[in-house]
Amino acid sequence: MAENFDAVSVIATKRDGGALTDGQIDWVIDAFTRGEVHDEQMSALAMAILLRGMDRREIARWTAAMTDSGDRMDFTDLHRDGRRLPTVDKHSTGGVGDKITLPLAPLVASYGVAVPQLSGRGLGHTGGTLDKLESIPGWRSDLSNDEIVSILESVGAVICAAGARLAPADKKLYALRDVTGTVESIPLIASSIMSKKIAEGTSALVLDVKVGAGAFMKSESDARELAEVMVELGNAAGVRTSALLTSMWEPLGMTVGNALEVTESLEVLAGGGPEDVVELTLVLATDMLAAAGVTGVDVSDNLRNGKAMDVWDAMVRGQGGDPRAPLPQAEHSELVTADADGVVESIDAMSVGVAAWRLGAGRARQGEKVQSEAGVRLHVRAGDRVRSGDRLFTMYTATPERFAAGAAALDGAGVIGSTVPHIRSRVIDRVTVEA
Amino acid sequence: MAENFDAVSVIATKRDGGALTDGQIDWVIDAFTRGEVHDEQMSALAMAILLRGMDRREIARWTAAMTDSGDRMDFTDLHRDGRRLPTVDKHSTGGVGDKITLPLAPLVASYGVAVPQLSGRGLGHTGGTLDKLESIPGWRSDLSNDEIVSILESVGAVICAAGARLAPADKKLYALRDVTGTVESIPLIASSIMSKKIAEGTSALVLDVKVGAGAFMKSESDARELAEVMVELGNAAGVRTSALLTSMWEPLGMTVGNALEVTESLEVLAGGGPEDVVELTLVLATDMLAAAGVTGVDVSDNLRNGKAMDVWDAMVRGQGGDPRAPLPQAEHSELVTADADGVVESIDAMSVGVAAWRLGAGRARQGEKVQSEAGVRLHVRAGDRVRSGDRLFTMYTATPERFAAGAAALDGAGVIGSTVPHIRSRVIDRVTVEA
Repeated sequence: MAENFDAVSVIATKRDGGALTDGQIDWVIDAFTRGEVHDEQMSALAMAILLRGMDRREIARWTAAMTDSGDRMDFTDLHRDGRRLPTVDKHSTGGVGDKITLPLAPLVASYGVAVPQLSGRGLGHTGGTLDKLESIPGWRSDLSNDEIVSILESVGAVICAAGARLAPADKKLYALRDVTGTVESIPLIASSIMSKKIAEGTSALVLDVKVGAGAFMKSESDARELAEVMVELGNAAGVRTSALLTSMWEPLGMTVGNALEVTESLEVLAGGGPEDVVELTLVLATDMLAAAGVTGVDVSDNLRNGKAMDVWDAMVRGQGGDPRAPLPQAEHSELVTADADGVVESIDAMSVGVAAWRLGAGRARQGEKVQSEAGVRLHVRAGDRVRSGDRLFTMYTATPERFAAGAAALDGAGVIGSTVPHIRSRVIDRVTVEA
Repeated sequence: MAENFDAVSVIATKRDGGALTDGQIDWVIDAFTRGEVHDEQMSALAMAILLRGMDRREIARWTAAMTDSGDRMDFTDLHRDGRRLPTVDKHSTGGVGDKITLPLAPLVASYGVAVPQLSGRGLGHTGGTLDKLESIPGWRSDLSNDEIVSILESVGAVICAAGARLAPADKKLYALRDVTGTVESIPLIASSIMSKKIAEGTSALVLDVKVGAGAFMKSESDARELAEVMVELGNAAGVRTSALLTSMWEPLGMTVGNALEVTESLEVLAGGGPEDVVELTLVLATDMLAAAGVTGVDVSDNLRNGKAMDVWDAMVRGQGGDPRAPLPQAEHSELVTADADGVVESIDAMSVGVAAWRLGAGRARQGEKVQSEAGVRLHVRAGDRVRSGDRLFTMYTATPERFAAGAAALDGAGVIGSTVPHIRSRVIDRVTVEA
């Protein structure tokens, strides 16, 4: 039973640089969920938290209070052929062209592990996994708990929307932060992600924390701190959690946009696909399997032998989709070409993400529809040599009046010069709990 | 015509420590007034302003935008007997027992100056001038513009409520700050006060900026900064503005509560009353008359000769009140006595203010009714010698179940010890525009 506080005194504590007590945190999250603490009060508190910070105890309590604001799922009793299935989940902090969940979930499931992947929709320049999958005819994201369990036990992987009763405090707060300039706070980002993941009841979790122009975290030190906070939160809550820091300066893969990214994911599941997407899929799959107790396998095997694709097909069918149906294709396309000879020094992820968004692939407000067919295809990567007039990007949209806005975003996105860039691995570092 | 911005980018500018542009300020105030910028967005911005501050240019622009959000009144054309009447107004930042407006407005008006005193209601531990006057049977605060002009031309003084169209942006923001912990910000306080005062169209203004336990500003340096900012804002907007810094460590006068303070004000208008109330009334009256071009008078004359009281009577009648009707008296009273022999070292203004509030003199939420008869009478001042059992305070209320809460607030409010305090003038300093 939460004690009784008042909103102004809780806000004033944080505003004046103090630490919130456990009682204040429990009360304010509960009262906010019930509507007793109003949106304008929570947004003032969120701004005070963003500017004043929270210590590790406060973040842990804030996360626990949000987890406890709704239902918790329980996947500890999944079985197949009489054997208990371990569960493992993955979460990415979001980036441009980040379709990794699509090949990754079926690949990991193909090794006998259950992957309950509860995902979100995109807002702004980063796409949402559900938006991508909804470009598959018939596919639906809203599954009942019984359907989730049934698909996990039969197929092993499910990618669906989190129910309204899962961490409702976070749902309310997330929507509020989005419109009040209070997104970019490590305590608020970490507690938002981890409250949902803990409520989802997975026993292991691998985080993909993005760093770079196309990510929320623009610096490696911020990303590392976010990863450390989340790894600590997960393990303290009994979820075996580790994180990868991965680079998001350049878009991931050669496509950005919903149906375009599904197609690229299918290439990876068929044993092909862009090198960076394949690399990150394999590294994450290895870490997820290890967290679920599966070691000593070469995770690329099931991409080559078709087993991961079989899981994909079964997963899509299990959610009402037709894995053989043709994906929507844009009626209109327009090229962006190089205006000089030289080497592609870099391709700015944020510019490409904003272009795809403006072409119709993303939404400016919650609830807006997105275009399945809109987006950007990259024809070059950093390090490629080009001549003036060579193709850099193709833009796609159902609404050609958007080409001008897309082209404006892409202007200068590909930097052509004379310095050959040093191409590094996407994986910067691994963050695990301290021994 | 305001440019178009978006709320999140304006909030982010201030959140990240930047200065808001004139265009951003004009847009955000206008859009907030129209409801396009939502309460939760403005409260996040208010918190960012509180923690990041605003420079003088930003404060001036913010004030101008709030002034321009509604109507402006114009008192430049008041006449009496063919002569143009100068106008002068006074504003206090609020304190415990601060009834100065009541004797001051008629006193200043008695020297041939018009005093259009648009006032507010109390919230929390500081009382509101309108609440005090409403204890007079029949008196009403809601006057039309024509009534205001007519009373100013015939009587010279009017104390009434500001209309809904006067600085509506400030009205909305003030209500929001009250519930979001964003009251204590010098830029927000200064712009709130000055936008209203500039919109009221007075040609001169004297500010009474309180410092101490019973005031918003607890330190002299904060109060001085607030005074300097407001004096600069007023003069830049063409209002001849000066300020007094006055002390609010101890309650002002011997009474706190609505009808109790009217009675004490009548004592001052009759040539008597507590020394500190008289002193502050005279100093403020002298400054107001000087600002209105009236010099070389002894302002105590019209307290002694009854002319100020004549204006009071006419003012009260002009607003529907009966100046001879008995004021409401509390049915219930209870004494608080000294528990030791010694000297009264201090009387804490905040404790007395909270006691009066709890007894029913103030409101916890906007719109609540207040008791005219509730409050606290002081029987001692700092420096007085007392013996155990002597009266310190009398509490009054219509609802005797409130005595316990009032007594709890007064517990320790009068500090009795052995050190004789040094009694200083209420007036700490005068802040004027730099030459």
